[in-house]
Amino acid sequence: MKPSVSSQKIVIIGAGNLATQLGSTLYQAGYSILQVYSPTKKSAATLAKKINATAINDLKKLDPSASLYIISIKDDAIAAFAKELKLTDQVVVHTSGTVDAAILKNSSENYGVFYPLQTFSKSKPVDFSNIPVCIESVNKATAKVLQRMAKSISNNVQEISGEQRKILHLSAVFACNFSNHMYTIAASILSQHRLSFDLLKPLIAETAEKIKLNDPAKMQTGPAIRKDVKTMQAHLKLLGRDNELKTIYKLVSEHIAK
Amino acid sequence: MKPSVSSQKIVIIGAGNLATQLGSTLYQAGYSILQVYSPTKKSAATLAKKINATAINDLKKLDPSASLYIISIKDDAIAAFAKELKLTDQVVVHTSGTVDAAILKNSSENYGVFYPLQTFSKSKPVDFSNIPVCIESVNKATAKVLQRMAKSISNNVQEISGEQRKILHLSAVFACNFSNHMYTIAASILSQHRLSFDLLKPLIAETAEKIKLNDPAKMQTGPAIRKDVKTMQAHLKLLGRDNELKTIYKLVSEHIAK
Repeated sequence: MKPSVSSQKIVIIGAGNLATQLGSTLYQAGYSILQVYSPTKKSAATLAKKINATAINDLKKLDPSASLYIISIKDDAIAAFAKELKLTDQVVVHTSGTVDAAILKNSSENYGVFYPLQTFSKSKPVDFSNIPVCIESVNKATAKVLQRMAKSISNNVQEISGEQRKILHLSAVFACNFSNHMYTIAASILSQHRLSFDLLKPLIAETAEKIKLNDPAKMQTGPAIRKDVKTMQAHLKLLGRDNELKTIYKLVSEHIAK
Repeated sequence: MKPSVSSQKIVIIGAGNLATQLGSTLYQAGYSILQVYSPTKKSAATLAKKINATAINDLKKLDPSASLYIISIKDDAIAAFAKELKLTDQVVVHTSGTVDAAILKNSSENYGVFYPLQTFSKSKPVDFSNIPVCIESVNKATAKVLQRMAKSISNNVQEISGEQRKILHLSAVFACNFSNHMYTIAASILSQHRLSFDLLKPLIAETAEKIKLNDPAKMQTGPAIRKDVKTMQAHLKLLGRDNELKTIYKLVSEHIAK
């Protein structure tokens, strides 16, 4: 049985991709979202409207009556924000994959990290139920609050250390950001030759599908793993004068072949 | 209505990943598969058994009564094989993304290419119905045979030129082979730190899902697109002494940021 969430009042700091999806999901799970803060009033208003909250762009107007403050802003903006935020025992978390939890130590005695391991866009709703939510807490009281919130939206809650979170985030850059960029490169090559990216979609879907049940190293196909030098040379020739792409092609191929 | 395929008799040359999946699919679609040839008798026998065919490992035993011969072997083995293969008007195709159709010109007057754009493993059955099957034919008679076969297993049949096929294959290396290798790198980083690759699976699924309806360039997330130098430097530090991975990380990040 999911714990009741009706008594939890939340303030969301930020109105970007993650703030938007997490805010919407918490709202749908029954939490009261009191406020959405963003220095850009318009961004705050857009999210606030969706989740029945008040938009603010002035920290002085921050409502101190919430029990939980979720900071979901750019990594390099968290430190400056934390300096301004003075709470007492309310729980405060950030959602970053890389920033230390202790950056929040002067904002409240109860701080931690709430890191959903997923890629978010403002426009695409995400089902949180299978997303690993990684939490880190300075003390047991904070852990209890974060566990409760995490379990109310996800069936995959993990307590991990800051070091583990950083490793997860690094691996996610390869698995998500870099693989998406490989899609972008492919789309660009096709577009230059007036071929539709749609042709690759079943291939991309199958490539991602395969690793659900198999080790990706064992699923590797293509000229590099076959050490098919002739095909790789033909590909480099097709890439023409694009030296950056050629270097990426060579390096990734060499890394596969090892 | 799908054309009747009962009169078509096929010989499959090769018993690798693609030969296995294509052979099985054609068999299920109602074709008679007369023979499976492989220099390794055991490989030929494994596939032949599945699709009610005879395994051969001696080209002299090739049955000349088939109407279609599908050569699905390593790219660099096709030329030598084609030299040995002497047909008259039976259709002969290879399934390579890179090799010229004309490599088969001395094997039969009716030759072409039958290139299903997908990644294949022997062990994982594949639904061909949505796979783009790209065909190229030396003449109309060959085109008719290939169209008919392609349409009997796929709803996405494309007549493309040899040049277009090579571009498609190059783009597929990025979209499939290289993105799979990014999964492999991620799995390896996690394994070194005793973290489970399962944690990344929802992220990988979502990354591939997003591009079904969106331009991948617009879906890019992560430190490189945000130009978050601090996080990228922290990642390079985490990669420690692995200079190859560091170089890949830097190059791909720079390419994303442009």
